[in-house]
Amino acid sequence: MHEGRKINVGVLGATGTVGQRFIALLSEHPFFVLHALGASQRSAGKPYARAVTWKQTKYIPAVVREVVVQECKPECFRGCEIVFSGLDADVAGPIEEAFRRAEFAVFSNAKNHRRDPNVPLIVPLVNASHFSMIPQQRSLHNPPLQKGFIVTNANCSTTGVVIPLAALEKAFGPIESCMITTMQAISGAGYPGVPSLDIIDNIVPYIGGEEEKMEWETLKILGGVSEGEDGRKIFDMHARQPLRVSAQCNRVPVIEGHT
Amino acid sequence: MHEGRKINVGVLGATGTVGQRFIALLSEHPFFVLHALGASQRSAGKPYARAVTWKQTKYIPAVVREVVVQECKPECFRGCEIVFSGLDADVAGPIEEAFRRAEFAVFSNAKNHRRDPNVPLIVPLVNASHFSMIPQQRSLHNPPLQKGFIVTNANCSTTGVVIPLAALEKAFGPIESCMITTMQAISGAGYPGVPSLDIIDNIVPYIGGEEEKMEWETLKILGGVSEGEDGRKIFDMHARQPLRVSAQCNRVPVIEGHT
Amino acid sequence: MHEGRKINVGVLGATGTVGQRFIALLSEHPFFVLHALGASQRSAGKPYARAVTWKQTKYIPAVVREVVVQECKPECFRGCEIVFSGLDADVAGPIEEAFRRAEFAVFSNAKNHRRDPNVPLIVPLVNASHFSMIPQQRSLHNPPLQKGFIVTNANCSTTGVVIPLAALEKAFGPIESCMITTMQAISGAGYPGVPSLDIIDNIVPYIGGEEEKMEWETLKILGGVSEGEDGRKIFDMHARQPLRVSAQCNRVPVIEGHT
Amino acid sequence: MHEGRKINVGVLGATGTVGQRFIALLSEHPFFVLHALGASQRSAGKPYARAVTWKQTKYIPAVVREVVVQECKPECFRGCEIVFSGLDADVAGPIEEAFRRAEFAVFSNAKNHRRDPNVPLIVPLVNASHFSMIPQQRSLHNPPLQKGFIVTNANCSTTGVVIPLAALEKAFGPIESCMITTMQAISGAGYPGVPSLDIIDNIVPYIGGEEEKMEWETLKILGGVSEGEDGRKIFDMHARQPLRVSAQCNRVPVIEGHT
Repeated sequence: MHEGRKINVGVLGATGTVGQRFIALLSEHPFFVLHALGASQRSAGKPYARAVTWKQTKYIPAVVREVVVQECKPECFRGCEIVFSGLDADVAGPIEEAFRRAEFAVFSNAKNHRRDPNVPLIVPLVNASHFSMIPQQRSLHNPPLQKGFIVTNANCSTTGVVIPLAALEKAFGPIESCMITTMQAISGAGYPGVPSLDIIDNIVPYIGGEEEKMEWETLKILGGVSEGEDGRKIFDMHARQPLRVSAQCNRVPVIEGHT
Repeated sequence: MHEGRKINVGVLGATGTVGQRFIALLSEHPFFVLHALGASQRSAGKPYARAVTWKQTKYIPAVVREVVVQECKPECFRGCEIVFSGLDADVAGPIEEAFRRAEFAVFSNAKNHRRDPNVPLIVPLVNASHFSMIPQQRSLHNPPLQKGFIVTNANCSTTGVVIPLAALEKAFGPIESCMITTMQAISGAGYPGVPSLDIIDNIVPYIGGEEEKMEWETLKILGGVSEGEDGRKIFDMHARQPLRVSAQCNRVPVIEGHT
Repeated sequence: MHEGRKINVGVLGATGTVGQRFIALLSEHPFFVLHALGASQRSAGKPYARAVTWKQTKYIPAVVREVVVQECKPECFRGCEIVFSGLDADVAGPIEEAFRRAEFAVFSNAKNHRRDPNVPLIVPLVNASHFSMIPQQRSLHNPPLQKGFIVTNANCSTTGVVIPLAALEKAFGPIESCMITTMQAISGAGYPGVPSLDIIDNIVPYIGGEEEKMEWETLKILGGVSEGEDGRKIFDMHARQPLRVSAQCNRVPVIEGHT
Repeated sequence: MHEGRKINVGVLGATGTVGQRFIALLSEHPFFVLHALGASQRSAGKPYARAVTWKQTKYIPAVVREVVVQECKPECFRGCEIVFSGLDADVAGPIEEAFRRAEFAVFSNAKNHRRDPNVPLIVPLVNASHFSMIPQQRSLHNPPLQKGFIVTNANCSTTGVVIPLAALEKAFGPIESCMITTMQAISGAGYPGVPSLDIIDNIVPYIGGEEEKMEWETLKILGGVSEGEDGRKIFDMHARQPLRVSAQCNRVPVIEGHT
């Protein structure tokens, strides 16, 4: 594939810290071409380098410096097959749905659709099999979608945990219970994120919603895809071998890298 | 005075970090009684302990825990002779003026009136003589005020600098030039203030407006009060012995205490 | 007791960070009088304020500033009934034994005797009953000691954990297993302790020996004192209800206060 | 030169943080080949990867991992034309002199010879002309050296300052006075270097010897090379246009990068 042709992709929420990371990685990717960048109305119309407050270690990739930022509307992303969404949770829901309806493949870092019973929550090394849910997701539209779908990634903390858990389950069989303690970097909270007055010479022993997310997402990812009585596919949440997950999440004064 | 009677005082902006510091200090003061607390409409009507996100090292003084927060209107502060203002600069201007007009003595930590040619910028050890401007300030109202006035303190960085400069001038005569480099704690930026992503493992070599404030305020404080041609008093900005002040202000990852 | 008379006490290792903490606390204690301070030969003979590199938040207590530091020999501590040892582990063992033999009550923060089968490892709220081991400890000397003994405290991390565990066991019966994750402040490593290059913008996910200490000490403290077949008392290490303890200890860039 | 042949070089003090930095840079250098590594007797005989506690961001260069560390004696560095010295100041003096005597070109980061009246203190963009002192340095040996010499770099803080000062002098003529305030990273203090208890949530407003070094080195570097009455060359320390330098050096909790 990557020899024959490259794939045009877009980034939603391109000026945020997640969008910046998408851009930094995609700009060096062998298969993908950054074709369109979307952000809020405030940024739309400006060259990317002027619209963004760049917070990454490496410089803004030259290839996007002069790209004019668009609004996050499907008609502005013509020519893209895939969009990566780094949108904030307060706007991601309906925008990602509009892109799906317009037949884009949407890969989202936002939490909005993670709990959707038809949206796979994918950690590639663990549950690529969950992509099998996509046909059912498309069939819920009228007429059914041909190419559009939404797939989300997992919370950053969950991702690091399910990989070894999946390996342990593969080797030794179902796990019954699991206690997780995280020490998470401030970059995970975005920008401006954690006020320095709260975290310098301190740890913050609670991250709102994070513990609950880790417990719920771990079950969705490690569980299988079953068929319900009505023939519809469902994520079974590890139901046949109940798995108790207990997470305790802490913020620590480290810039990057969760533990 | 403090034997005969105590003075009722109020705090404007009581839920902010400056207001909290006023309350922590005033609650233990031998002359003053905390009589009224004012904050935004959002906080008004709530007991202080519920309205505030307390950020001081010591606990909320018991004496204010149950005090119901008022709006920042003069009629809510009846019974106070003095109000201390920890208001944000975006609202401090007109509120402080309303309290002056209502015959309150207003001592403000906000920057709004620091440059007012009739408002003294006081550092008690240095220029208490500038209080002599108050009668002129009152006379500008029609009818002239009897008791109301506004006095401001100086920027925290300026305060630390003018004290030794005044001592040097007293000992050796006028200074010609002065270079200042500060390393300022994050608490000076309020809350949420400096994002932790900006300051952990870093210094921020610029604080917006701070350098200009230090240069300007230093001249106002170290200068005298002269009489203009029209008989009006003016702050002479150290004009007879021009003093060049050059400040370079840095934010450092220290919670409290400027250097 | 504290009304009738006060007790003279000494501090071993008085110039170290633990010794400093002993002194800060004892100088304000209602029952105790700081009577002698001991440190290495290098410090002996100097007034305390000159011998010490004081690292506490509060100032050196006035009462010890001029006290001349002694060597850590029993004959230098005449007049003391109790000595508190903040000695480094590399010298604490034989010095504390010498003081016991000279009939001092030795309360030690050092780890050297924590595993001694006749030395109680006391967390006051949890296992004060272990003081019952002291007569046996004295009887091992020839002739038996009249007043001398050694008691140690637990590792700082262990102390915080066994208190709630003991409460849970009291309420619900024996615990079977327990997973502990700590985030420990740098002050616990003494001075100079953790190099700043290792811990700024970082956590250090291992503290040598700490995990093993927490696992072992927890069993000694939560277990009872039984009688062996030969009639001798033994710490039973929670043997009747085996308790599995798993600790994972991390150093975090926080000055004081373990989590 | 770099096309025709590469130059074999050695590193003295190869296991220290300065030596590590030399190795990281030299391993990617187009002209130089890392030929020999020297360290203390404790490390000598071990493969470099086992002898070193590597503290750099990048991995140990593959090319040195298996190189056996030598003692810092000239006979162990046969085949090298140049040695770079990252030795600690407490041993650098005589070792570097031994290598000079053995006809090596010694480039040193140590402070020991910086004040030597025959050793240039070079900041390449500023005073490459000072290399003209080398013939006189060689001539002081009996018989005169053919190839050996010592050149030192400047203190890290001095280096950053003299470059703009030299540019200013070039554009506007001699500077009369100069005030310097530094905020220096902890990496400059080596490893273990600054204890974390001293620098977290703090700045340390004094670095022993640093201010004096900046003031002295700046004069040596910005000054010229003159001829004394006896025909010998001397560094004139900016003597014809006296330059007053006042430095105030602070340590800040930043890992890398002085300000």
